[in-house]
Amino acid sequence: MTDPAAAYEELKAAGLKLDLTRGKPSAQQLDLSHELLGLPGAGQFRAADGTDTRNYGGGQGLPELREIFAPSLQVPVGQLVAWNNSSLELMHDTLVHALLTALPGAPTRWVDAGRVAFIAPVPGYDRHYGVCERLGIDLVTVPMTADGPDMDEVERLVAEDPSIKGIWCVPKYSNPDGAVYSDEVVRRLASMPTAAPDFRIMWDNAYAVHHLTTEEVEIADVLTLAAEAGNADRPFVFGSTSKITLAGAGVAFFGASQANVDWWLKLASKKTIGPDKVNHLRHALFLKDAAGLRAHMAAHRELIAPKFAAVDRLLTEAFSDVEGVSWTKPRGGYFVSLTVPDGLASEVVRLAKEAGVVLTPAGATHPYGKDPQDATIRLAPTLPPLDEVEKAMAGVVTCVQLALARR
Amino acid sequence: MTDPAAAYEELKAAGLKLDLTRGKPSAQQLDLSHELLGLPGAGQFRAADGTDTRNYGGGQGLPELREIFAPSLQVPVGQLVAWNNSSLELMHDTLVHALLTALPGAPTRWVDAGRVAFIAPVPGYDRHYGVCERLGIDLVTVPMTADGPDMDEVERLVAEDPSIKGIWCVPKYSNPDGAVYSDEVVRRLASMPTAAPDFRIMWDNAYAVHHLTTEEVEIADVLTLAAEAGNADRPFVFGSTSKITLAGAGVAFFGASQANVDWWLKLASKKTIGPDKVNHLRHALFLKDAAGLRAHMAAHRELIAPKFAAVDRLLTEAFSDVEGVSWTKPRGGYFVSLTVPDGLASEVVRLAKEAGVVLTPAGATHPYGKDPQDATIRLAPTLPPLDEVEKAMAGVVTCVQLALARR
Repeated sequence: MTDPAAAYEELKAAGLKLDLTRGKPSAQQLDLSHELLGLPGAGQFRAADGTDTRNYGGGQGLPELREIFAPSLQVPVGQLVAWNNSSLELMHDTLVHALLTALPGAPTRWVDAGRVAFIAPVPGYDRHYGVCERLGIDLVTVPMTADGPDMDEVERLVAEDPSIKGIWCVPKYSNPDGAVYSDEVVRRLASMPTAAPDFRIMWDNAYAVHHLTTEEVEIADVLTLAAEAGNADRPFVFGSTSKITLAGAGVAFFGASQANVDWWLKLASKKTIGPDKVNHLRHALFLKDAAGLRAHMAAHRELIAPKFAAVDRLLTEAFSDVEGVSWTKPRGGYFVSLTVPDGLASEVVRLAKEAGVVLTPAGATHPYGKDPQDATIRLAPTLPPLDEVEKAMAGVVTCVQLALARR
Repeated sequence: MTDPAAAYEELKAAGLKLDLTRGKPSAQQLDLSHELLGLPGAGQFRAADGTDTRNYGGGQGLPELREIFAPSLQVPVGQLVAWNNSSLELMHDTLVHALLTALPGAPTRWVDAGRVAFIAPVPGYDRHYGVCERLGIDLVTVPMTADGPDMDEVERLVAEDPSIKGIWCVPKYSNPDGAVYSDEVVRRLASMPTAAPDFRIMWDNAYAVHHLTTEEVEIADVLTLAAEAGNADRPFVFGSTSKITLAGAGVAFFGASQANVDWWLKLASKKTIGPDKVNHLRHALFLKDAAGLRAHMAAHRELIAPKFAAVDRLLTEAFSDVEGVSWTKPRGGYFVSLTVPDGLASEVVRLAKEAGVVLTPAGATHPYGKDPQDATIRLAPTLPPLDEVEKAMAGVVTCVQLALARR
């Protein structure tokens, strides 16, 4: 092994300018949807039921698009809403609705409920935390495991504290761990007793079809399990095509019990005359059906699986026998979570930045940007070309090695 | 004059099925934007500054599209935000932000302010009222005049009552009167003393370029007048292309002081990674520049001005010498407001409905759906073809005549 300090000086001298910060699709991935840019095409604006998609109306979104996504999001098509371009917006706005109008089963609207807190499994997704912080919703952390949140801890918290009104979940290929919730975890979330009668699961199924292997992992159906347990109104399901078609110009989805959806659509009808149905039509024409969606995601996999393989290869070469350094091997999603010895994550990020490799700030995977262990680094390898991912990861390896040596 | 009862029986026997309820563009108007359906076109996704519009980001919207609309909305391009498909959503969400986070200059966020009330000039736009009703904001009515709201009354109310935090304005070709705010009214709105330090003008400039004559009416620049009066943060300006390009798939705009826009963008960044920039690019490529926008609106005018002329002609033929029946002659916008003797509006709407001519419910132009005079009927002639507008209006004339005769 070369001297880490010398290797780091060499890295800095290379003058890199690389970015592994955010889970953005690459230009090549966006090119897979190039047809969308010309759709629906002149003269083509009728939905399957004859609706002129150009005009106002149609608050639940185009049925033929909802039909394509209902199976993968595990929501009956009649309970699925297709909306505009951001599922984060749907999550935010759904919580705004709950703050300002009592949810089905809620004793009061949340702004009148005193403290409102959500459980945040950590490490997790910084934008989920951002929504809660912005809305004045407290965050209570529980540890993630390879099977989902630590359910003993979750069950204990929700059973005793009525101010805990929700939990954030990325159930498949979680951000940043790539964890997949086990059937048992889903069943316990759906059926656990909660002190709050208006408890909600924010089921952000962002990576429902984003497989990195041919395995195509399935998870348990949270809406059905919740209904069977007498908690039909508990799950709010979210999804989007941001990492399927175009990141900034896709379609987001919301699904829930009929009572929740009725509540939601009534409130949404006060703020807009409907979502962009032409974009729904564009997507329905492009993806065609569930099989078309599946084939499209296989093309994504071919582009990004080699990048994840490169991350794993470079980390394995350097750290397979180094104690305290570990990383996830996701079967899907957009992230690898790198764990370094406690107290070193922010130092690695700092060193990398100084050498021209920008990483997600250490701590971003935890509420309020504070990782008490300072041990988690989120790596997002999809955006740069493969050779840049390799260069960036070689740089990350050097920075970890230097931080370890200096410890 | 034929016997009104006999004429009404004849009308019913005709079995019409016509609709003058909502301000929707006709299919012919939507056809003017047929090119949009194929834009931006395969391989075309770069903004003028090189941004890949397909990916995440760009929270303020595409600069080249904001440049096209900045002049007509009278907002400096740097203070204009281009967003998704609904200006009503922008209004709703901006008020949600004000409820949950203190506005620039506000002593507190509005949910903590006790009562919050807005002034609603009547007659006005039912969806504005709907937003306030949904958000728990009270409505205080003041009469509209041909020059805008009764400013003596507005000034009196806002000077004495700190719970009055805003006023709804459709300053050009108002809904439903077609009134144009005089320069003096705009100046008084911009400069009047208000008991609330966080008072806002909801300046819904929905019909900024929607002229029905070649006059192209201009209004005073509320942002500049407010800044000159020391109230830079007072106006919130809204607009959209819903009645320019595609009603359900256009682009909405928000403009305000830099402090307001900074406040707004920061909150918006917590709920979404940005608006649909591909749709922005689509619109910029289609409209090209302010001259292109102007030419496009002239094509709309050619389609809809004859419909407004037909409404005026049929009403003039029947009621030019009838006391108590009057109507507006808008120079732009989407509506004609028909005034009948007190207590007759709902009867006319009922009679029309029974004869197959659906009108906007009487009272919809007033908060809580209650017009104390029961005298205002909003007519929306843009959607049906010209011959149907004529048939529908002949029916309306018959219904008014019957209601008058029965009185």
